[in-house]
Parts: sequence; C-alpha cells; structure tokens
Amino acid sequence: MTPEQFRTEAHRLVDWMADYLRDVGERRVVPQVTPGAIRHQLPASAPAAGEPFATLMADFERIVLPGMTHWNHPGWFGYFPANHSPPSILAEMVTATLGAQCMSWQTSPAATELEQVVMSWLGQMLGLPATFTGVIQDTSSTATLVALLSARERATSHAAGRRGADAATDRLTVYTSEERHSSVDKGVKLAGYGLEALRLVPTDAAFALRPDALAAQMDADAAAGFRPACVVATVGSTSSTAVDPLAAIAPVAARHGAWLHVDASYAGAAALLPERRWIIDGIDLADSFVFNPHKWLFTNFDCSAYFVRDVDTLVRTFQTSPEYLRTAHDADVVNFRDWGVQLGRRFRALKLWWVIRHYGVNGLQALLRHHIALAALFRGWVERDARFDVVAPSPFGLVCFRLRGAGGSADDDRALDAQNRALLARVNSDGSVHLTHTLLAGRYTLRMAVGQLATEQRHVEAAWALVQAAAAEVS
Amino acid sequence: MTPEQFRTEAHRLVDWMADYLRDVGERRVVPQVTPGAIRHQLPASAPAAGEPFATLMADFERIVLPGMTHWNHPGWFGYFPANHSPPSILAEMVTATLGAQCMSWQTSPAATELEQVVMSWLGQMLGLPATFTGVIQDTSSTATLVALLSARERATSHAAGRRGADAATDRLTVYTSEERHSSVDKGVKLAGYGLEALRLVPTDAAFALRPDALAAQMDADAAAGFRPACVVATVGSTSSTAVDPLAAIAPVAARHGAWLHVDASYAGAAALLPERRWIIDGIDLADSFVFNPHKWLFTNFDCSAYFVRDVDTLVRTFQTSPEYLRTAHDADVVNFRDWGVQLGRRFRALKLWWVIRHYGVNGLQALLRHHIALAALFRGWVERDARFDVVAPSPFGLVCFRLRGAGGSADDDRALDAQNRALLARVNSDGSVHLTHTLLAGRYTLRMAVGQLATEQRHVEAAWALVQAAAAEVS
Repeated sequence: MTPEQFRTEAHRLVDWMADYLRDVGERRVVPQVTPGAIRHQLPASAPAAGEPFATLMADFERIVLPGMTHWNHPGWFGYFPANHSPPSILAEMVTATLGAQCMSWQTSPAATELEQVVMSWLGQMLGLPATFTGVIQDTSSTATLVALLSARERATSHAAGRRGADAATDRLTVYTSEERHSSVDKGVKLAGYGLEALRLVPTDAAFALRPDALAAQMDADAAAGFRPACVVATVGSTSSTAVDPLAAIAPVAARHGAWLHVDASYAGAAALLPERRWIIDGIDLADSFVFNPHKWLFTNFDCSAYFVRDVDTLVRTFQTSPEYLRTAHDADVVNFRDWGVQLGRRFRALKLWWVIRHYGVNGLQALLRHHIALAALFRGWVERDARFDVVAPSPFGLVCFRLRGAGGSADDDRALDAQNRALLARVNSDGSVHLTHTLLAGRYTLRMAVGQLATEQRHVEAAWALVQAAAAEVS
Repeated sequence: MTPEQFRTEAHRLVDWMADYLRDVGERRVVPQVTPGAIRHQLPASAPAAGEPFATLMADFERIVLPGMTHWNHPGWFGYFPANHSPPSILAEMVTATLGAQCMSWQTSPAATELEQVVMSWLGQMLGLPATFTGVIQDTSSTATLVALLSARERATSHAAGRRGADAATDRLTVYTSEERHSSVDKGVKLAGYGLEALRLVPTDAAFALRPDALAAQMDADAAAGFRPACVVATVGSTSSTAVDPLAAIAPVAARHGAWLHVDASYAGAAALLPERRWIIDGIDLADSFVFNPHKWLFTNFDCSAYFVRDVDTLVRTFQTSPEYLRTAHDADVVNFRDWGVQLGRRFRALKLWWVIRHYGVNGLQALLRHHIALAALFRGWVERDARFDVVAPSPFGLVCFRLRGAGGSADDDRALDAQNRALLARVNSDGSVHLTHTLLAGRYTLRMAVGQLATEQRHVEAAWALVQAAAAEVS
C-alpha cells in the first residue's frame, strides 16, 4: 500500500470512524455472542496471497464488530469508564504514523521532553507536591508493581536485586485494605514478597481502610520481626470508590519506614476538582501515586500517570545500561526506559497533551462535574425508591445499590443475592446499557458507573427506567 | 469536539499522515536538538481554557516534530527496525476509535477470539509446534519477565508466589549468554532471583552461546546445590544477531528441569522463511518463545508475540480472580488478563490480522528477503573494501563492521575505537541515514540494520557512500 493508497483508504476509514462515534449509542453495548462464535468464522491459517484493504475492512465489519463490547457507548455504566475522546484519537493517529520508539531521550527527544512537561502539568492540575516527578506507565497494574519493586529495593538497600529476594531472611510485609484492587495481590506475588506477606487490613463502614487497624497490624508485625516494606492505599476502590484516609495512613507508614503507594487509578482524576481534592489530603507524605487518564480523563488506553518522589530508588531498581543503548547525552537527559519494566515505549505523551489543551483544565473539570452530578441524580432516584438500598458513599461517578430484602438468615441472603443477580441480567439483556456487579460486605451489589464522554442525562434516565422495570419483574 | 468536527479534523490529519509517510525520507533521521530545547518552548502549566485543534496541530508541527527521531525513515539503520505499515496504521486508527478494553473475553469477545486465531496463524507461519499457545504481550522485556516468573513458579511448585521468593533457600539460577539482551538482567532482578543468580555463559567466535560451556556451568551449579530454573537463549542477539543453537541447548536445559525461554525479539520474524527456519531448530523442546512483530513484521509497537507450552503454569502464575471481574463465561473462554502482568489490554490483534492479510504470507516473505538481500549487498561492499572488517555473521538484516586497524596494543585498540566512533558520528551527522554502535569482543563496532518498509537499494547505497567518505576523512 503506497502512501497515496493509504490516503484513499484512511479517508474512507475516517468516515467510518466518525460514523461510529456518532452512532455507537444505537448498538448493543455488549454483543450477544457465545464463546467460539467469532473464532469459527475465521480461517484456520493465514492467507498466502495479500488481500485488498476493502476486503479486510468488510470482514472487520461483518465478523469482528458484531462481537465487540462498546466501551465508549453512552450507555456504558460497567466496571469503570475506559474513556477516549476525539482529540485523543487524533493523537493516536499521529503516534501510529510516526511509529517512534520513546525508550531514551536520544531515540525521540521531543517525546521524552513532552512527557516531562505534560506530566508536570498533570501533577499541578491535581495539586501534587512539586517533589513528585511523573512518568507514563501503561497500566496501574504495572505502576503498582513498579512501586512494590521500588519498595522492595529500598527496604533491602538494593540487596534484593543483587542477591535475590529472600523472604525468610528479609521478612518484608505489605499492607493494603480488604477492598484493594487485585493488582496489589498480583504485584506482591510477582515482586517476590509472596502472598503470605500481604496483610489485608479491615475497612470501616464506608469500605475505607482503618488506620487504627493498619497501625495495630504493622506494630504487631514489627514486634514479631517482620519488616513492613510497603503500604498500598486506595483512593477510589474498585468495588465502591472508597477513599482510604491518606493523612492518617501516611504517618503510620512513615513510622515503620514503609513505602506508601497510592492507587487512585479511577478516582485520581477527581483531584482536578477543588471540591474533591480532599481525597488526596496527605499525598505530600506518600512515595508514589498512580492514576489513569485512560479511565476518567478522556485519554485512550494505555496511559497511566505514575508520580514518584524518590526517583533515584526508582531508577536504581530498573536501570540497565548496555552499550548498544548508550548515547552521548545520557548524563544530561532523562531516559524513561529506566523508569519502569519495559524498554520499548510508545509516544503516549501526545494524546495527553492534546486532551488537556483541547478541553483545557476548565473543560475537563466541567466534564467530571457533569458525571458526578449524573451519578448523584441516579443515587437520589435509588434512595427514594423503597425497594432499593444504596450501600456505599458515592463521592465520584459510581453508585452501588441493591434490592432491599428481609435479610437475616443465610437463606434469605442467598435468595436476595440471586434476586439482585437476576435484576442485573435483566437490565443488561436490553442491550442499551451495561452495568456490572461486585460483592460488598459479602453481598451481591450492582455498580452503576457514570463516566463516558458521550453519556447524557437521558442515558442515565433510561438505565434507571430499566432498573425499575426489572425490579418489578424479579421481586 | 463533536463527531462531525472530528470528521473534519481527521480528514485534514489523514492528508498530513499520508504526506508524512510519503516525505519522511526528506527529513533528518535524527533531529539536531540539544537537551531541553523542546521543553523550553512549552508553557510551564496547562491552559485553563480549551484550544481549537488547529492550534494543537500547528504547535505539534512547530515544536514537537522538529525534535522527533524518525524511526520509519528509509535511512533508518539504527538499533533494530521498529516497523509499521499502512495496514497497521489503519488498524491502530480503528483500535483507538473503539477504545475497547480487552482484558477478558466478556469485555471484548471478538478481540479475544481474533487474538487466539491470529496468534495461531503466526505460530503456523513460523513453524512452531502446535503445542505452543500464543498471546500478545506489549514488549519482549515484559515477555521475558513473564517467562522468568513462570520458571520461578514452576521450579518452586508455586511456593515462591505463596511464601515469597527465597533466594537463600531455593538457590535458583538463570543462564543466558554474554550477548543476551539487557532485559534478561532486568527480569532476573525484578523477578527476585537477584543478579548474582544470573550466569553469563561464554560465546563462540560467532557470538553464540556455547552449549558445552552452558552444560559445564549448569552441572557445576547443580553439584554446588544450586537449582537451575531457567535458560534464556537468544535467536538474533541485539549486538550482532548471533543465533544460540537451540537444538544443543534444549537437552541441557531439560536435563536440569530448567525452563527454556527463547528470545527471538528481532530475528524471530525470519522463521517465516523456509531458508531461515534453521534458526529455531530445537524449538519443540523450548517452554516459551517471544518475537516482536513490531520490530521486523511491519506492525506498530506494541506487539510482542509470546508463545508458551505450559499454559497452566503461566495462568497459575498470573491469575487473580476478584469478584468484580467474574463473568458467566469464565469457564468456557480464555481471559488474557491472566496471561501476563497487566490487567488492561488494548485491542492489538487487529493490526496483526490486517498486516498478515494485507501482505499475505508470500508478501511478508518477499519483504524480509528484500531486507536480507540489501544487507548482503552492503556486507559485500564492506568486505571488498580493505579499510574495513566485517566482524560477525549476518544471517538477517544486520551488518556489524569497523575500520580495520594495526591493533595489538591497548593504545592501538583505543585509538581504533576512537576512529570508529568518529566515523559513526560523521556518517550520522549528514542526517540522511542513522546507524548505531555496539561493543563486540570489547571493541567499538558499527551496526547497519536494514529493515524499514520504505528502505530501497538506493538508501543502502547512500549509506555506503557516506561510510566510505567518512572513512577517508577519519583515517
């Protein structure tokens, strides 16, 4: 395909893209396909001869698209939002066209320096202390692993990297709440602490980590000869967007010399709002902080913003410096390849730059407030309907609720859970909206997460109408 | 920006993209910028008000583009290629537009199933045994870390994940050649083995790992109470594309029960050619294999193809299953979130599907042969010029060479290294080509890596003319 043929095809594709963005709300959010249905429409082997792009696009529309879940549907209320936006998509088009490797300053000077600038902007926008330096990671899972590895190296004065992690000798422990994201467990396992070193601290009635329980656990462990290496606090938990109180947690972590990592993957974006900045009170005492512009800041996945105070420990943990990567400028520049797991890096700063500039800080704040207001509206409707309980605070765009039941006995609980499960299935079967579930205090709970760029009040109203109708049917 | 405004801007951008692809060869490959030059042109804080896209694009062209290294320039002969192609860029446009999360089957059924199908195609195209199952990772660094973690868990019967890596008790060791990629060192450190557990096995005159030396080292370690957990063999080393002999290595690894991981990041693509398939002779005895379609298979970064034999160990190493991610289909489908470090995943199978189908296997083979032929041509010119030595075999697109010198004394060696360094600087200063360097047997060596989609014979001729002219000047 020559550049001129590319021009022709890409223009045609742009019309498809604009149509898709305009019309995605008319599709089913989640497709009705059974396992294997897509796979069985595809040939078992690659074609020997090349095919024209029109054929590829036609097969995409015929076979693949009907099997896609539409995360940017205005009726998407599942998990957390995985947003994008037109300026972000435009940036991804440029990033793909350049195809630049952004591992070192030398391999793309402008990409490195734009990342430094945009991450500094972002830190200021959130009110992070100037002692933090930012770098883009791919996901929060990776960022949390990066924090856990940095903590491991700091706690062992870099002995773990040299002679190996040594659980029996080092006895390092990690602390997080019962409501933490699963990536904490995964990171603890991968980084070599081992799952037995993970202490799940109880939460309060609002599902936030209890600092008193944290202190008690850390003190008891220290007394028993363990060495608390890391505390992972959650700002906006996955199940219910609970906010662990950083200001109370930080001194506890500091007393034991533990690295304090703050996982604000979804909710961190809300710190752009002065009225929500309380969620990161105490952040000046943290060691690292991650939030995902690819969740609730209209930036295409992947784009995790990782901020860290002790860059030296970070770089000592991840640096390798083989001859073939050395350049004349290494002493004067930042080489982001030494700031994380991967060597190769995409040019991800561009989309963040364009999103921030296109909407402006004011525009981004307005979008976040819009989503928070829509969630509050939905919450109000649920609260006023005697059939439902709202079961957690909603400081952001998420409302956790369930059908109310007599409760009490285990049998009653099981029956009520089954009823709520049936409610969710019924709501989602319509295809115009998609909600997901979780367990809160062991009970089946529906999650309504408002946060897509295209979501308007009418979509939230439609979801509520479906919930009400389904409740009438399953009760 | 509404979908209609997006349509207008995206059409304009497509013309810029097609122009860029057509004209990139007229730019300097590597920009002439000094550290900070880009950063200082950007405001210190984010704008409060939004800005029109035209302003963003103008600033991109004025500030960022002049500071970019053009990895897809036809004169790019540095590092290894980081290719893309028009069908791959078109796929990235669609991926960005959908913005789908491909962590579970349920969150994007078609993306999961397309990945299964395309990875199966790719395995067949390389002649991998059907016992391997494929999954797309982001980079080889991550894939190698995944292999090292899987090996750690297999060697400890998953005790490491449970009670922690325990270097002093487990005494796990890892083996690789002196010419391995730096990501092996990084992975050994991060996975908790510790760098002291890494054994660098000597290489032969062609810079390939010596199986006899590997066997001796593993036997000695086992006798001393160490437990060999993993061997990382390299097919196409970074410095010189040396090929470790898998068929001789595999039985040694097997004798000690060690996981055999094959890092074929760059050269793996060449296994598409029947006449190069010898490079993976013995692969049927390996446990895992990675190569990067984003290097030499015309697919945008990131796209690392990871193939693994023991899926059960892989999944047991990485699986977490919190309630909010459970779906009704989990028993019947593959959830790729459990096949690696990250939870979130982009829809990366699409670009691979389109690249393979657009070029066809025949077309891809023709492109690879074209690059290998151009490298052979360059090598021939260097060999016939008495001023130069070619210092390593060139089974793929890379030629390693340097100015010949009297040599012998340490002073002579230093002087010759300086002369070669000056040669490289002079060649690159022209701006129309870009080569990089390495150390081979401790000596400064130039690397000429042919592999960009747009590279034609005239570009290789131009590089050779520059090398000849520079040699006359520095000699």
